[in-house]
Amino acid sequence: MQIDQIMQQAATAYEQYKNIPPLQRAAFLETIGAEITARREALVKTAGEETNLPMARLNGEIVRTTTQLQKFADLIKEGSWVEAVIDTTPNIRRMLLPVGPVVVFGASNFPFAFSTAGGDTASALAAGATVVVKGHPAHPRTSQLMFEAIQAAIIQSGMPAYTVQHVTGDYHTGKALVVHPYTSGVGFTGSLQGGKALSAYAAERETPIPVFAEMSSVNPVVFLPQALETRSAELAEMFATSITLGAGQFCTNPGLLIGLESPAFTAFQQQLGTALEKTAPQKMLHPGIHSAFLEGRSRVLASQEVTLSPAPVLDFDASAVRPSLAITSGAAILANPALKEEVFGPHALVVACKDKTELLALLRSLKGQLTTSVMATEEDLSQWKEVVDVQVTLAGRIILNGAPTGVEVCAAMVHGGPYPATTDARFTSVGTAAIRRWVRPVCFQQFPDTLLPDELKTANPRGIWRLVDNQFTR
Amino acid sequence: MQIDQIMQQAATAYEQYKNIPPLQRAAFLETIGAEITARREALVKTAGEETNLPMARLNGEIVRTTTQLQKFADLIKEGSWVEAVIDTTPNIRRMLLPVGPVVVFGASNFPFAFSTAGGDTASALAAGATVVVKGHPAHPRTSQLMFEAIQAAIIQSGMPAYTVQHVTGDYHTGKALVVHPYTSGVGFTGSLQGGKALSAYAAERETPIPVFAEMSSVNPVVFLPQALETRSAELAEMFATSITLGAGQFCTNPGLLIGLESPAFTAFQQQLGTALEKTAPQKMLHPGIHSAFLEGRSRVLASQEVTLSPAPVLDFDASAVRPSLAITSGAAILANPALKEEVFGPHALVVACKDKTELLALLRSLKGQLTTSVMATEEDLSQWKEVVDVQVTLAGRIILNGAPTGVEVCAAMVHGGPYPATTDARFTSVGTAAIRRWVRPVCFQQFPDTLLPDELKTANPRGIWRLVDNQFTR
Repeated sequence: MQIDQIMQQAATAYEQYKNIPPLQRAAFLETIGAEITARREALVKTAGEETNLPMARLNGEIVRTTTQLQKFADLIKEGSWVEAVIDTTPNIRRMLLPVGPVVVFGASNFPFAFSTAGGDTASALAAGATVVVKGHPAHPRTSQLMFEAIQAAIIQSGMPAYTVQHVTGDYHTGKALVVHPYTSGVGFTGSLQGGKALSAYAAERETPIPVFAEMSSVNPVVFLPQALETRSAELAEMFATSITLGAGQFCTNPGLLIGLESPAFTAFQQQLGTALEKTAPQKMLHPGIHSAFLEGRSRVLASQEVTLSPAPVLDFDASAVRPSLAITSGAAILANPALKEEVFGPHALVVACKDKTELLALLRSLKGQLTTSVMATEEDLSQWKEVVDVQVTLAGRIILNGAPTGVEVCAAMVHGGPYPATTDARFTSVGTAAIRRWVRPVCFQQFPDTLLPDELKTANPRGIWRLVDNQFTR
Repeated sequence: MQIDQIMQQAATAYEQYKNIPPLQRAAFLETIGAEITARREALVKTAGEETNLPMARLNGEIVRTTTQLQKFADLIKEGSWVEAVIDTTPNIRRMLLPVGPVVVFGASNFPFAFSTAGGDTASALAAGATVVVKGHPAHPRTSQLMFEAIQAAIIQSGMPAYTVQHVTGDYHTGKALVVHPYTSGVGFTGSLQGGKALSAYAAERETPIPVFAEMSSVNPVVFLPQALETRSAELAEMFATSITLGAGQFCTNPGLLIGLESPAFTAFQQQLGTALEKTAPQKMLHPGIHSAFLEGRSRVLASQEVTLSPAPVLDFDASAVRPSLAITSGAAILANPALKEEVFGPHALVVACKDKTELLALLRSLKGQLTTSVMATEEDLSQWKEVVDVQVTLAGRIILNGAPTGVEVCAAMVHGGPYPATTDARFTSVGTAAIRRWVRPVCFQQFPDTLLPDELKTANPRGIWRLVDNQFTR
């Protein structure tokens, strides 16, 4: 089918869908969740075949996906997310309204939670936008099955037929979707190259649109001295698990481990190396990611300033990868910015800095990140206050004494960060605030109650929190 | 002075300024207001010489400027604007933090309220950003005087010396400011050409930054039949005033007046034309705007499908302009998109549509606008529901039975709209929500109270509204 026809259908469906009351939209999201749960076995089996991800992980991801749908359903049932603001003199009232049809690109590394019925689709439908999903080519049957769950929910809930549409294709299809005049926004999780290309297409349009691309992050972790001295073995276990989780195929995978040259940091490296050695080899999502991982890792290891720990045996089975740990110095990485780039997979680079000045210089030299973590005791933090200060400028989420993998779907979550982690650090793609990507504020001046949306009527029939003459009330 | 040195200073000042507690930042904004008031006479006199704007208007604009500063001071004193969100299990807490130094381009048409100490500067300082102002070349002495007021406030409040800096120059200077790596955001009010150029510079950066440019709007007004029949004379007076206010040099000037061919609409045009004829000629802000206005108007009048009402005498004094009204048909403007473009000055184009279908087609064909208005009775609105539906998709502010000029500085205001009205319809440049342009959300995971900003501490020492475990509390 032609992209033009698909976007026409999305626009026509939008004219109806945007006016469907929030409680019905919420029920629709819940029905999608129920239809997914009803197809759980087939979805997990198919995704297992297409992605090499283990059953336990896929079952967990199904729960995460339906939980996300439920959280957005709850959000719009409650209703305060529209940020209603009312000034009575003069009578000016504002709320958030959907922008129009949006295009969602499925991600390969989360075949459910960031894909066809994932967080981008759920948040857009909650906002009142219609959605065209471009299924990820690495899991086409999974994407199609998931779309069937959505279609069943559309019929059962009586939503417009083209509220969600599903297309497959190559990057020409992707470009055609982004540049179509009816497209109002784009959600993407993938490579830096992919995100930059989509952003360029969007910027070239006669009417530019926002592209929310989550692209690249090495998620730097700083290990402070006392923390290392008191619990290096525990930290090594924690990070071995985090580095190898899902074969390292998470946006929040810790790729850069930074500390001061010291016996304790050396001990940590050895413990981490040993723990990684014990991890079973894992198959990656698809051959493209597998070969990109090997190439990226080779590029890092080609540097004379980088050594491999603990052993140079990298891959004994062409279809699986073993995790690896590389080691370098602060001076080397400062001199070679390529070492700061993401290697997507179960690999991390340890950087031993010669002093605090070098460590802070390294942190300040990093580009924007999704997360950054610090392993520290209270004593460490009182002596290394600048570390957290720099980290706050670097990322959307700062973690104390925890690994960055594991992104909670909650109201406070920021899964986003300064460029090139994402294209727009002001928004998150995980958590209920992700709904804000698909809306804009509209203000009604001198409108009587009868002509206003319920959210803005004087009597507050929706019972939502509103800022009325600068006072929060409900 | 070199731009690089200026941005270095802005970045260094930012490291201090961002940590200054909100109550002190609020006092600083109030002190700027007091210093402006203390210099009021000199400011008004100088601006009068540089802009041709009358005393009454300039005195009013001084009040608006100090009111804006006070509103942002009040906002950060109250504190809830940071959108604090706390989830306790796991412990994840989010708030808005400033992005870094920002660059503000002064606007020519508001020498105080949208210029050196205008809304962009006030909102950025409130957010915790430092500011580099590029003064508008059309009022250099006014801008310098205003900067002296800010400098006095910096000293009196003990703020970092380079919290606000002032530069002058041509577009090379502007570009150098936008592309400098330390610049984190840009505020601009001006031409479409200028806004597009700044956006392109920002997009080409290694790290793209947001440019909030308010660029172009014809602020379409729809006159529905019964409203015209019952009060065409009153509407003609209202719009004659709105079209000629400030010599038409407002972003919200009503440039496109749309109705159905009818005796009542013809009567309205005649009444409006007569009212405009009575308006005294006005000098425009500067020779560049004056000649651009004459050229733009000539371009519209060159179309064979456009006639001038009431009389072809356009300019009797080379230094002043008379308001004018042009008339065309729905078919003509649909066939000639150039007629939909902004003519910045005291001029409007009346469009008589042959039927409802044509009128709706015209509305749907328009690009993004700051505002759109509808003049209607209750009866009109019940019969013309689609008009408001389309208007909601078109602009940031929809006005019922009022002229678009006069932008209230309040919490509910949206002074922004779909491209090309602005570069980003999700934000406003007027009203307290303008502060959001200079911040991004940052989330702290597993941080103890002692290491958190006051806004996120469990005991809520700032007493602000927060979303705690999905409940709004204070």
